[in-house]
Amino acid sequence: MANMGLSNVKGTRDLPPEDMVNRNEAISILKRIFESYGFQPLETPGLENWEVLSAKGTGGRDIIDQTYNFKDKSNRSIGLRYDLTVPLARFIAMNKQLAMPFKRYQYGKIWRYEEIKKGRYREFYQFDIDTIGTDSMLADAEIIGCAIDCTNALGFRDFNVRINNRKLLDSLLIYAGVEKSKLIEALRAIDKLDKIGVGGVKAELSQCGISNGAIEKIMGFLKISGKPDEVLKKIEKIAGENDGVKELKQLISYLVMMGFKSKYVIDLSLARGMEYYTGPVFELSYGSIGSIGGGGRYDRMIGIFAGSDIPATGISFGIDRIAELRKPQKIAVTDVFIAVVGDVLKVALAFCRKLRKKGMNVEIDLLGRSLSKQLEYANSRGIPKVIVIGEKELKTGFATEKDMKTGKQRRMKI
Amino acid sequence: MANMGLSNVKGTRDLPPEDMVNRNEAISILKRIFESYGFQPLETPGLENWEVLSAKGTGGRDIIDQTYNFKDKSNRSIGLRYDLTVPLARFIAMNKQLAMPFKRYQYGKIWRYEEIKKGRYREFYQFDIDTIGTDSMLADAEIIGCAIDCTNALGFRDFNVRINNRKLLDSLLIYAGVEKSKLIEALRAIDKLDKIGVGGVKAELSQCGISNGAIEKIMGFLKISGKPDEVLKKIEKIAGENDGVKELKQLISYLVMMGFKSKYVIDLSLARGMEYYTGPVFELSYGSIGSIGGGGRYDRMIGIFAGSDIPATGISFGIDRIAELRKPQKIAVTDVFIAVVGDVLKVALAFCRKLRKKGMNVEIDLLGRSLSKQLEYANSRGIPKVIVIGEKELKTGFATEKDMKTGKQRRMKI
Repeated sequence: MANMGLSNVKGTRDLPPEDMVNRNEAISILKRIFESYGFQPLETPGLENWEVLSAKGTGGRDIIDQTYNFKDKSNRSIGLRYDLTVPLARFIAMNKQLAMPFKRYQYGKIWRYEEIKKGRYREFYQFDIDTIGTDSMLADAEIIGCAIDCTNALGFRDFNVRINNRKLLDSLLIYAGVEKSKLIEALRAIDKLDKIGVGGVKAELSQCGISNGAIEKIMGFLKISGKPDEVLKKIEKIAGENDGVKELKQLISYLVMMGFKSKYVIDLSLARGMEYYTGPVFELSYGSIGSIGGGGRYDRMIGIFAGSDIPATGISFGIDRIAELRKPQKIAVTDVFIAVVGDVLKVALAFCRKLRKKGMNVEIDLLGRSLSKQLEYANSRGIPKVIVIGEKELKTGFATEKDMKTGKQRRMKI
Repeated sequence: MANMGLSNVKGTRDLPPEDMVNRNEAISILKRIFESYGFQPLETPGLENWEVLSAKGTGGRDIIDQTYNFKDKSNRSIGLRYDLTVPLARFIAMNKQLAMPFKRYQYGKIWRYEEIKKGRYREFYQFDIDTIGTDSMLADAEIIGCAIDCTNALGFRDFNVRINNRKLLDSLLIYAGVEKSKLIEALRAIDKLDKIGVGGVKAELSQCGISNGAIEKIMGFLKISGKPDEVLKKIEKIAGENDGVKELKQLISYLVMMGFKSKYVIDLSLARGMEYYTGPVFELSYGSIGSIGGGGRYDRMIGIFAGSDIPATGISFGIDRIAELRKPQKIAVTDVFIAVVGDVLKVALAFCRKLRKKGMNVEIDLLGRSLSKQLEYANSRGIPKVIVIGEKELKTGFATEKDMKTGKQRRMKI
């Protein structure tokens, strides 16, 4: 068994303490901001019925192909969730007594059998907020405002939200000459712009049977991006005031009322992959890194499960990337290491518990090591302070706390 | 699709906000205490290679039978973890550079295809602490002390830790006349005492081929339980000072040094199900409810993966039960609901953001409802305070905050 080629399942990974300390801080920050907006915590299972995960109108063909599905021991078809939105829709449909709007946040693992690239895993995490039960653009504005507050709190400077609208994209595509039956395929091609570039998108649109004239018009639209007011004027000149433009105008006006005057642009090239979006779509864009999250309005997806439509909007934070982009503030949870020298354990253990009760995070030697080995351990673990307790300290009743970085010392009563 | 018999996967459940608010509080409390002992956060994947999950010497036959296993899309045998300890062992074996002792906590979902009973699910949560790399009983004492501190912080009064030792159990079984080859089966039978009663255990021991005389002796031992000093004296009279007794004595002396003088008993009927235990075993026992967690020392399990033994001890908190046993302090995260009447949205939204920035959790009407409908909503959601903003408030610049329980009102500047 020692030779069993010990490994993680391909595409999965462990998160050791030095990563988790940083990640937990990022999670706390997001949670605090989410709760300030009145989003409430929800948990749903990792396992869902295959019927739910594969329902038409949810994630779409590509996602369903990537989903882990299998039979349980009673031969039921089940699978692992590929996002937190479809399970939320199922939850809403099953709980019609819920007071609306229902605003929830959820953190959790999701699974997708994707090609493995740097920073891409088959088991990863999302941290979502969604508002269910209102078609008001105020809900979308809250989602975007909340995301901006989150990135500010995380200390992300070079950040903005790219905003577009599926209704607008549809109408521009139709205006360019795309047939209604080809809209979804055209959107799927546009969504790949960052991955396959202008040439790639053109080729895919052409494969859909879209004319070269239409493709040129579409590629012209996709270049339109910038300050909301200016972009909206441009679009109105081209396509008049359609539903997509109306929604965007309303959304932007709410953002301004809330006090958000920058950190967002309208970008017509933004499509977002999921098929279920019906109105505004958003992407959180961080400098040269690109997307660190995204979402949009999906007014018809819950209806797939509920029987009648329930409007909804939300965003998913790519917490894996967000945690990696943060400068770690510390790598250890432990504040103090108590080094023990000689026959002083009784006093040291009592002192240790006293510090813990005061709210400090304290480790004490568990291996009966020499003082130098104990200091080496504290150092390698990144524990910032050490208190040595030996026979001398026992006699005097005082110990010295040493800062491992600055070397500063402080006398303290045991 | 509306008729698809919408449901959770059998044996799984959603945790709605009113449960999650309470659960998150319990998690915060445990996390704070764990960190005060210097335990560091770790995450491992839900998916593990089947080779790891089914390795001999890990969970044992019964657990492996209950484990979800399947093939991924490249035909690899994988499965869902049935505990957090086996993945930890795999992690330790894969990371031999880790400074020892390695103390970690982990919260996460686990999956077991068990019979479904009240309060028993196929997807549930554990919250574990483990100390790796030391065979000192001080590590076991820390685990027990930490558990006692946790239950105090949770406000659990009628609580104690039952302690036993596998080495002691083995030697008592041998002393009673059980053959060495039958020890594991005998332990498995004893572990079922709470479920199948004295008669059931006797029958199972008999089925193992253990003589009636031996069974009577064993049943006599299992009755021994109580204050550590008294129990230890009794055992020494019967079986002399064997390794199990030595370990228990040391463990208890450390607990006393740390300042823990009550809330634990030695109970010879405690066996614990997992096969991997090698020394002290513990169970967290809450009044008439029974077990809310348990664990023990497993000095040989990591060696299955690492090639050579690495000592370890730990405990798992049944966080599902713990959360249910806590009296919920509140059901909503939201502190204040802002009710909006008339054409005042601009002021209301700016005020809302001001309160959020101050650290308050605030919701504002997203549905353009009548005042009475807004108050009804705030009430049904359990939001404790409401601030009404209408044209009058706009003129005067002052609004009234109303406590929804007491009816008390407070004037405040917008």
